[in-house]
Amino acid sequence: MCNIALIGFGGVGKSFVKLLQLKKDLLPEDIKLKYVIKSDGGIYNKDGLDIDELIKYTNSDNEIQNHPLWSDVKFKDILKNKDIDILIELTSTNIVNGEPGYTHIKESLENKINVVTGNKGPILLYYHELKNLAERNNLYLKIGCTTGGALPSVNVGTTDVLGAQVTEIIGVLNGTTNFILEEMVKCKIEYKEALKKAQDLKIAEKDPSLDVLGFDTAIKIAILSKVIWDVDFEFDKLNIQGITNIKLKDLLLEYFSGNKTKLIGRAFYLNNKFEFEVKPMLIDKDHPLYFVDGKNKGVHYKTDILGDITVTGGASSPLNAAAAILRDLIYIIESGRK
Amino acid sequence: MCNIALIGFGGVGKSFVKLLQLKKDLLPEDIKLKYVIKSDGGIYNKDGLDIDELIKYTNSDNEIQNHPLWSDVKFKDILKNKDIDILIELTSTNIVNGEPGYTHIKESLENKINVVTGNKGPILLYYHELKNLAERNNLYLKIGCTTGGALPSVNVGTTDVLGAQVTEIIGVLNGTTNFILEEMVKCKIEYKEALKKAQDLKIAEKDPSLDVLGFDTAIKIAILSKVIWDVDFEFDKLNIQGITNIKLKDLLLEYFSGNKTKLIGRAFYLNNKFEFEVKPMLIDKDHPLYFVDGKNKGVHYKTDILGDITVTGGASSPLNAAAAILRDLIYIIESGRK
Repeated sequence: MCNIALIGFGGVGKSFVKLLQLKKDLLPEDIKLKYVIKSDGGIYNKDGLDIDELIKYTNSDNEIQNHPLWSDVKFKDILKNKDIDILIELTSTNIVNGEPGYTHIKESLENKINVVTGNKGPILLYYHELKNLAERNNLYLKIGCTTGGALPSVNVGTTDVLGAQVTEIIGVLNGTTNFILEEMVKCKIEYKEALKKAQDLKIAEKDPSLDVLGFDTAIKIAILSKVIWDVDFEFDKLNIQGITNIKLKDLLLEYFSGNKTKLIGRAFYLNNKFEFEVKPMLIDKDHPLYFVDGKNKGVHYKTDILGDITVTGGASSPLNAAAAILRDLIYIIESGRK
Repeated sequence: MCNIALIGFGGVGKSFVKLLQLKKDLLPEDIKLKYVIKSDGGIYNKDGLDIDELIKYTNSDNEIQNHPLWSDVKFKDILKNKDIDILIELTSTNIVNGEPGYTHIKESLENKINVVTGNKGPILLYYHELKNLAERNNLYLKIGCTTGGALPSVNVGTTDVLGAQVTEIIGVLNGTTNFILEEMVKCKIEYKEALKKAQDLKIAEKDPSLDVLGFDTAIKIAILSKVIWDVDFEFDKLNIQGITNIKLKDLLLEYFSGNKTKLIGRAFYLNNKFEFEVKPMLIDKDHPLYFVDGKNKGVHYKTDILGDITVTGGASSPLNAAAAILRDLIYIIESGRK
């Protein structure tokens, strides 16, 4: 149960390797990371890669392509060699067709390999299919990292409320828009200037569309809706509005009234009635998400018999996201279901 | 795995029976509540009690002693009959010697019976012994309800942070003191008057010592410390201070500076250094526990690799506490480890 392949070696993948070293005392002694695979090749050792050596290839000065074991090993080789139990899928997200993550996850599950992923695209588009495939094959598909990284939003909305019915999910789940909205108020600047600042600080991407148009928030709330309610819907038809039209003067007026504007994702489901919206909303200071600022995230669940439960925190960084991957990995190892 | 006995039939026990009816669609069809036991007798049906009928004995006008099956059945009969898988232990808490809960839990675990409890006394005093006993016998001992009822404080501090090291636990875990402190500020009254009000509203007990002297908060933080860190200590020697000496003028001064005083429990553990305190502390408005008011509760975990994670909510009522018991029961049934 301890043979692992990692596919995707960006910030989170590199941090994950660092955590394998940092947390080795928590992990089984016989754990083996056998593959690290990128789009143009990878490294493979059937007896397990030397983590201490691999760490040297996690900084930008020393690309993994320089590793002595670098070869044209591909994902297909994992299936052919049949020598891993768990795939860590961390390739870039793609919300148009979910590839290449979708194929990696699907074919792994078809080949009796458990999957831990932080890749939102395939989960947004194919959650039910993949989840059913995992269940049929008695495997784990763990996706905790897709809905807020370190924030345990999936766990709190499922196992932590077992027996209760979640009726509403309200989330502040995007750090970039949090930052921009706060910066506008703090520095009294308009949206475009705050966005520029976020880009200079590498908090926003060069093309910030996914974040500022509300799609990232919508994806996370959509995934939580599918996981918690087993509800299906077309993502394209959801009501999604971003923060690009927000004016400084409106934010300031609200701020002086003791309120904050946040980009909120909200979903409601009861008796087959499903509502979904993402838009900037006013939050007053008595709301449990009022203080979810900066890079923090939070999700508020309304339930029938456990009251309202809110979980906040889990700051976003590649290390924190990798820690969410490690959490799911350890869960699988400890459950040892395979 | 679905034969159950309930021992203790106060507010939470009665609400638990109501939930068995309300949530029957979530539970296995062959679930059977075979025993309801009180200190002076109980009811027993080897084929399972009729829940719809039992509900009639959950209001104060119709005591369970009037039930046609009422007899002198005792806890010992459960062990003798060997016909249950899970004991729900809800007798009154006793923090001097943990009895009678301690004996019920211990003897059940010795007799291959899983246990779900909301009884703080035996868990505070004998957690390690009971947990080890459960593990040796491959059984579950689920205690989620002991540390904040519906609030999933145990889950968030354990499975939701798998792989991370919790270094600090900070909790607002007592609704009665929350209410009194808020009422003092809101109505500008001194402690004694606010306590009287809480007692009139049945929020505080006639003898409010456990709550107002800080012991209830301390018990919950102590249990979380034992569960999360496997640390041992003598409860008697902990640093515990309540709210009885708080003056209205101090609260008001803080309130006007944007702060609140709350009864906080705090524990820290790293490299064998253990710190523990319960006392009224100032919380500023940027703290994630600032808005944990009224009957709500909250706990804030500092971790090494997942950032800080806070969970709040889970309002306290017998129904919410019973829902926490149901959560643990369903967890055991779904895991089906036995």
